[in-house]
Amino acid sequence: MPKKVAIVGAGVSGLASIKCCLDEGLEPTCFERSDDIGGVWRFTDYLEEGKPSLYKSLISNTCKEMSTFSDFPYPEDFPVFLPHARLLEYLRMYTDHFDLRRHIQFKTTVITIRKRPDFSATGQWDVVTETNGKQTSEIFDAVMVCIGYLADPSLQLSSFPGIDKFKGQYFHSREYKTPEVFKDKRVLVVGMGNSGVDIAVAATHTAKKVMISTSRGAWVISRVFDNGYPWDMVFLTRFLNMIRNSLPGRVTTWLLANRANQWFNHAYYGIIPENRSVIREPIINDELPSCIISGKITIRPKVKEFKENAVVFANTPVAEEVDLIVFATGYKASFPFIDESILKVENKHASLYKYIFPPQLEKPTLAIIGFLRPLGAVMPVVEIQARWATRVFKGLCKLPPVSTMMEEVNKQKQNKVNWFGFSFDEVLKTDCLVYMDQLASCIGIKPNVPMLLCKDPALATKIFFGPCSSYQYRLSGPGKWGGARSAIMGQWERTLKPLRTRVVPDSQRFLAYVLKVLALFAIFIGIFFSFN
Amino acid sequence: MPKKVAIVGAGVSGLASIKCCLDEGLEPTCFERSDDIGGVWRFTDYLEEGKPSLYKSLISNTCKEMSTFSDFPYPEDFPVFLPHARLLEYLRMYTDHFDLRRHIQFKTTVITIRKRPDFSATGQWDVVTETNGKQTSEIFDAVMVCIGYLADPSLQLSSFPGIDKFKGQYFHSREYKTPEVFKDKRVLVVGMGNSGVDIAVAATHTAKKVMISTSRGAWVISRVFDNGYPWDMVFLTRFLNMIRNSLPGRVTTWLLANRANQWFNHAYYGIIPENRSVIREPIINDELPSCIISGKITIRPKVKEFKENAVVFANTPVAEEVDLIVFATGYKASFPFIDESILKVENKHASLYKYIFPPQLEKPTLAIIGFLRPLGAVMPVVEIQARWATRVFKGLCKLPPVSTMMEEVNKQKQNKVNWFGFSFDEVLKTDCLVYMDQLASCIGIKPNVPMLLCKDPALATKIFFGPCSSYQYRLSGPGKWGGARSAIMGQWERTLKPLRTRVVPDSQRFLAYVLKVLALFAIFIGIFFSFN
Repeated sequence: MPKKVAIVGAGVSGLASIKCCLDEGLEPTCFERSDDIGGVWRFTDYLEEGKPSLYKSLISNTCKEMSTFSDFPYPEDFPVFLPHARLLEYLRMYTDHFDLRRHIQFKTTVITIRKRPDFSATGQWDVVTETNGKQTSEIFDAVMVCIGYLADPSLQLSSFPGIDKFKGQYFHSREYKTPEVFKDKRVLVVGMGNSGVDIAVAATHTAKKVMISTSRGAWVISRVFDNGYPWDMVFLTRFLNMIRNSLPGRVTTWLLANRANQWFNHAYYGIIPENRSVIREPIINDELPSCIISGKITIRPKVKEFKENAVVFANTPVAEEVDLIVFATGYKASFPFIDESILKVENKHASLYKYIFPPQLEKPTLAIIGFLRPLGAVMPVVEIQARWATRVFKGLCKLPPVSTMMEEVNKQKQNKVNWFGFSFDEVLKTDCLVYMDQLASCIGIKPNVPMLLCKDPALATKIFFGPCSSYQYRLSGPGKWGGARSAIMGQWERTLKPLRTRVVPDSQRFLAYVLKVLALFAIFIGIFFSFN
Repeated sequence: MPKKVAIVGAGVSGLASIKCCLDEGLEPTCFERSDDIGGVWRFTDYLEEGKPSLYKSLISNTCKEMSTFSDFPYPEDFPVFLPHARLLEYLRMYTDHFDLRRHIQFKTTVITIRKRPDFSATGQWDVVTETNGKQTSEIFDAVMVCIGYLADPSLQLSSFPGIDKFKGQYFHSREYKTPEVFKDKRVLVVGMGNSGVDIAVAATHTAKKVMISTSRGAWVISRVFDNGYPWDMVFLTRFLNMIRNSLPGRVTTWLLANRANQWFNHAYYGIIPENRSVIREPIINDELPSCIISGKITIRPKVKEFKENAVVFANTPVAEEVDLIVFATGYKASFPFIDESILKVENKHASLYKYIFPPQLEKPTLAIIGFLRPLGAVMPVVEIQARWATRVFKGLCKLPPVSTMMEEVNKQKQNKVNWFGFSFDEVLKTDCLVYMDQLASCIGIKPNVPMLLCKDPALATKIFFGPCSSYQYRLSGPGKWGGARSAIMGQWERTLKPLRTRVVPDSQRFLAYVLKVLALFAIFIGIFFSFN
């Protein structure tokens, strides 16, 4: 009899989990609180309690070839970076294509997930759910928690002195939907994460004045990277990752900072990170520098205190008038339906082996999927998590002994600073290539570049020097997909396809060619003389 | 008795002309049709007949240090690129500071400007104006026409087959004010000049779909240039201009195209110019590529025909649905109050010596100021035009014989292609550095870089390698301004000043320094071995 798996939530992680359960012959039941799939990607113009929320202008930060599930590429005519509605459309296509919907119970809230009395022998769970006010209890062999980390806003008003006296309007970024709310107002956005900057940029369309307050600062990069290629297709390659991870940390951070400053000098623009020894997750935004240089957005330091109609910033004597504050202060994770003895979140961090398994459970039948913020797209990461977790459930993959797992988890906690910051505070942000390769090795699907170089050099070159897209994990091993190779070979063409809506014959190619040959010739001469 | 000068229009050119008349001891009278100064920079949310019009989101394409009148720098806290309201604020400050307002007759329309019967002896004009329905005639010794070229929209509907059948809404870009008009509509912008692209980008905030139709394409550059410096401060230097003008035309265009493609490949994004042998005036826009890559704007070829609710593009079989068309098809110039025998505009081109003087007049007492589109800011160019014209009026500067002037004018007409295209069709777009230096030589205010190099090397370096800002024309000669040197020396600091609203101590300078020294060392070793 196939194992029954309960999946909590039908967002990106939940859908990937259903699909992986089906692939592994497990029997998934997905409980979704709302009446539709999509999770954070389903836009509503009203707020839903306990649900993640989206603003209207949101566009994916990662491009479609990098944001794809590994065996289901986006349609060719989809834009390179996806407005939220198109991304939801893709999720619907995925759901329909793999017939996932019939495994989802909508309008069903998970109330508790408890170990069965015989858990240490069976690893089974009692899952209590509620549909239309009626509670049901059911036994599952395993549970996948796919609720993300964007439902519960984090806002400590006590850390903002004087906010109780402030007479204007204020809200958490989660409540922001459209820029009309800012019309003719003086707006302050507190916090400079992706949403903070997106909201500030949108506010410039209607507000009288917009400020961003940030103590930490950030590196900002544009979706439109070198020569107009998507940033993540250029940046997230095995080759560059190898270089980044083999250089000393300070050199890498310096190189990365230099690269970011090529677009615009982050110090001049007032947003340079305070602590430059750790590269934090960069902000992806295309418009921030032009908003700053035209005075539409002013960058400010940390808030010192609020007054009735104004704000005072650190190291600034004068108060500035403000009508509306948006606290883009992030989210806190919580798993209210699981007992704290099993899973506890402290300071945004849960002790999880590979961000998935509570290491001290007697049986590895509880997996948290998507409880991390990769530098890069979420889809490939949660998919590979689900692929691994389902194989662990089946016993095809084994976890190491508890002591080994605890050791690794504790290492992460010890503020170990990798180039993309596995510091305790930043633990949700993960260097996704290294992480995905680790899981891929566990499953046995990691592409073997040296071997491929002999068998299929064209493919090996694309895998090593090209964008590290998720198709790479479908080339061989369990879950192999016949279309993977051609998906990799055609990824650049598919990326450029939707842009080619006006094609002009390239009359100048010959001149460019001649000039390139001359340049190469000059370089060779230079090299020749260098060695003589 | 001082000469009386009539000035038509109190926009940027008109204000500069009043100021230059006063500087030269002439007696200016400025006739302004509306009730305020500012011309094209005065935003109203309604249209005024015969007046230029502005859209709400407009920001100056040139930065404040390059857009300044040469003896009146912008206040330090003004943003680097100026929203229209700030630019108007500057014009008001200029007007007040030099007490120009009392020379302006508001709500006064110029009806006719006619040669006096004794014109060949006196060079005088009869100027008929109308205030509150009452006409007045007055004699002037000279006339400066400062009405710009943006009042009269150019839209040949006959070149768009089927437009008479089109059931949706359409208007010329001049009528566009705010993006609400596009709400939930499928919008087509025809034409890809600066306003066309600005309007398309603004439309993405509200429209359902936005397309730009362009047959010619364009090079697009961002205000935020290398390292975040304003594009024009990097691009418009004497040094780079010398290189551009000394290389063969095709190499220069290829280099410039390469530079534009570094930001994003114009061929991939569908906007590459059709004819790449002439570099046309580039479009300044910060957001177009990110709008294209996220599918918010689709670039389309030339319009073939319109249908009831759709458009068919050239080389495209399928019609695309459209609800609203904006014709960003530019403007046509006209001087209705001057007889065609004196000044006639053909195909956007008036035969004017140095874009200012009708060459065949018996006396040089009519100057057209600001009838050109420089690559760069308008203010410095119209100011130097006015400085020269007023000195010609006074007889301090002489025009060459009619035959010489006609020869030069005809040369321009002959489609002579300079690197920034003095082609007949593009005659209004002028390589501003060369042009300003020509006028400066006539006046005797052109900075002498070799001589300065001996006397004041720091200043000479800034003048040659730094941005070619207008203060350079106030260092010596007539109209010399004591503040010019310090304005030039402090121009970068003033540029960065408004951005520095959050300053972080630079803890990493030492590391950067060490790495730079190492890099330099490596380069020297390379050079050393190259020569051995």
